[in-house]
Amino acid sequence: MELYAVIMAGGVGSRFWPRSKEKKPKQLIRIVGENTMIQDTVKRLEGLVANDHIFIITNKIQKLRVKEQLPQIPVENIVDEPFGKNTAACIGLAAVIIKNKNKNAVMITLPADHLIKDDEEFRKCLSKAVEFADKSKGLVTIGITPTRPETGYGYIQFDETEVGDNIFKVLTFAEKPNIETAQQFLQAGDFLWNSGIFIWRVDTILNEMKKYLPDLSEGLDKIYEVVGTSEFERQVVYVYGQLKSISIDYGVMEKSDKVFLTKADFYWNDVGNWEAVYEISDKDDEGNVVIGDVYTEKTFGSYIFSPRKFTAAIGVENLIIINTNESLLICHRNNAQDVRQVVDYLKMNKRNELV
Amino acid sequence: MELYAVIMAGGVGSRFWPRSKEKKPKQLIRIVGENTMIQDTVKRLEGLVANDHIFIITNKIQKLRVKEQLPQIPVENIVDEPFGKNTAACIGLAAVIIKNKNKNAVMITLPADHLIKDDEEFRKCLSKAVEFADKSKGLVTIGITPTRPETGYGYIQFDETEVGDNIFKVLTFAEKPNIETAQQFLQAGDFLWNSGIFIWRVDTILNEMKKYLPDLSEGLDKIYEVVGTSEFERQVVYVYGQLKSISIDYGVMEKSDKVFLTKADFYWNDVGNWEAVYEISDKDDEGNVVIGDVYTEKTFGSYIFSPRKFTAAIGVENLIIINTNESLLICHRNNAQDVRQVVDYLKMNKRNELV
Repeated sequence: MELYAVIMAGGVGSRFWPRSKEKKPKQLIRIVGENTMIQDTVKRLEGLVANDHIFIITNKIQKLRVKEQLPQIPVENIVDEPFGKNTAACIGLAAVIIKNKNKNAVMITLPADHLIKDDEEFRKCLSKAVEFADKSKGLVTIGITPTRPETGYGYIQFDETEVGDNIFKVLTFAEKPNIETAQQFLQAGDFLWNSGIFIWRVDTILNEMKKYLPDLSEGLDKIYEVVGTSEFERQVVYVYGQLKSISIDYGVMEKSDKVFLTKADFYWNDVGNWEAVYEISDKDDEGNVVIGDVYTEKTFGSYIFSPRKFTAAIGVENLIIINTNESLLICHRNNAQDVRQVVDYLKMNKRNELV
Repeated sequence: MELYAVIMAGGVGSRFWPRSKEKKPKQLIRIVGENTMIQDTVKRLEGLVANDHIFIITNKIQKLRVKEQLPQIPVENIVDEPFGKNTAACIGLAAVIIKNKNKNAVMITLPADHLIKDDEEFRKCLSKAVEFADKSKGLVTIGITPTRPETGYGYIQFDETEVGDNIFKVLTFAEKPNIETAQQFLQAGDFLWNSGIFIWRVDTILNEMKKYLPDLSEGLDKIYEVVGTSEFERQVVYVYGQLKSISIDYGVMEKSDKVFLTKADFYWNDVGNWEAVYEISDKDDEGNVVIGDVYTEKTFGSYIFSPRKFTAAIGVENLIIINTNESLLICHRNNAQDVRQVVDYLKMNKRNELV
């Protein structure tokens, strides 16, 4: 059995403005720690997937930076989509490229911008999922045991009868809930967070796409015919131009009857906004996270990023302060989700240099 | 009777950091409106004191900018002190310079960095005080009727028996009170805010200094001997080197028995910190004062200054945000007095480029 990994790295991360910008989105910056998120994502696969079996699906704007940050990945494995068409197309494109190498291969698909701690557990968990996906020809995802009534994640309900080593049948996918529903999910015990990590055989996922996304499947067949030739790029543009945007969750996972999950034994956080970054960062005695040239006084529970310019914070609480060369964000931690509205505002006002 | 004005402009304004810096303190920047505060102060004397009868007492660091901002004032009227030695020395120095021109002149002394509205009323009020000071040979100050229990100002208690047109005998000076005392002052009705504006004859103030500040008086006599000669600058350095720092309030006004006040009929604010600037500025519907390239959302009661760089504020309330080329200040409006501590911190850490 041959194993591949596909890292989806096309996001724009508007909730991380002003650090994250179109040319340098969340996955390409150092949000936590020494490495960028995509570097951590690749590093986490070490010993499980060989570098030349790792594919990065990105876009034209980000491709150069992806190459720079991941010199260990062969450049031909860094593929850009002409347009973002959501995860179903992205995964389909990767699948036909891998099919051209080995149609019986197993592929792990994972986002480039999630935080995972305990890489060893992560790899163990994936190994079991890979084995099961190969044998069962099922679609396997990873469910994370919820630790709080989070309203920012999707949930997966599963049947508690074990069908393999820590493997369970998925009953249903649930969208991001309101707080009451999230509390019910947490109490129920059979709802896990949807990690967006998938494991399946290439032939399995392409068959399921044929069944549930026939238009996409037809387009992918056309691309498959020219993989490795000079026609490839043109064909991808042609096919993508006609595709509908649809997520793999909505397009396949919620419809297929062969979906399984394995429960994660590692810490996972999708780091969806600045509040999440605050939560996962080490704090000082005042509950502050301070990065850069910063003076604080009577300041508590705040995340302050100001690497270049001196910042003084006095008498403030629970703020996100991001002071970059071009822009300044000051946001209450409770409003971290609203940061994307600044990006909308800037785009509407043609302030493209700032987004 | 010949009338002179002396504008004291040597302050560093550390509570207006980071806009105000040593080289460009509060009086030399545009805090409110189109002009700098010193420009407004000079303009306010129009029609009352001739430009060549206006003296500016400043220091070496600020002198060039003062000249640039006040081209209508003769350069020989812009005098720099070698060291800051508080208001008694500053006023004494100005007094001997004016004495050299006319020892019977009346001089108005006023700070360069206060906000006064209704210039017409201001000049009327001063005119009466000048007339009274000239005839009575008393020390006259201006008292402002308090409109709130302000703890940031000094107070003056007066005898309510009128001794001239809107002129009253001063009973005592009170330091900045705590809030309970400030409330009592406000209710009592015979306490006014100490404006720091003084009116007296040159011979009167020099006599009072001789009585209450003999060391200063002796030094001033030495300076007087060389006013207008090439020895002047060296003599000032020599005399100032030996002077104690003492305020005119503490050194003369609180001791003299010939102190009077006139009640102001104009709006006055010493604009002591960013909170005062917020209070005197026009606000938008959300109670914000926004200057520069700023986006706000769910933001209320805040003062945001960001002329060069884009700033986005989301979900914040009652903040002072000052985003300059070199530094960023984020301060709760209740903590406006603490801004000077940032300046102390920066000086202690030899970050002189920032103060």
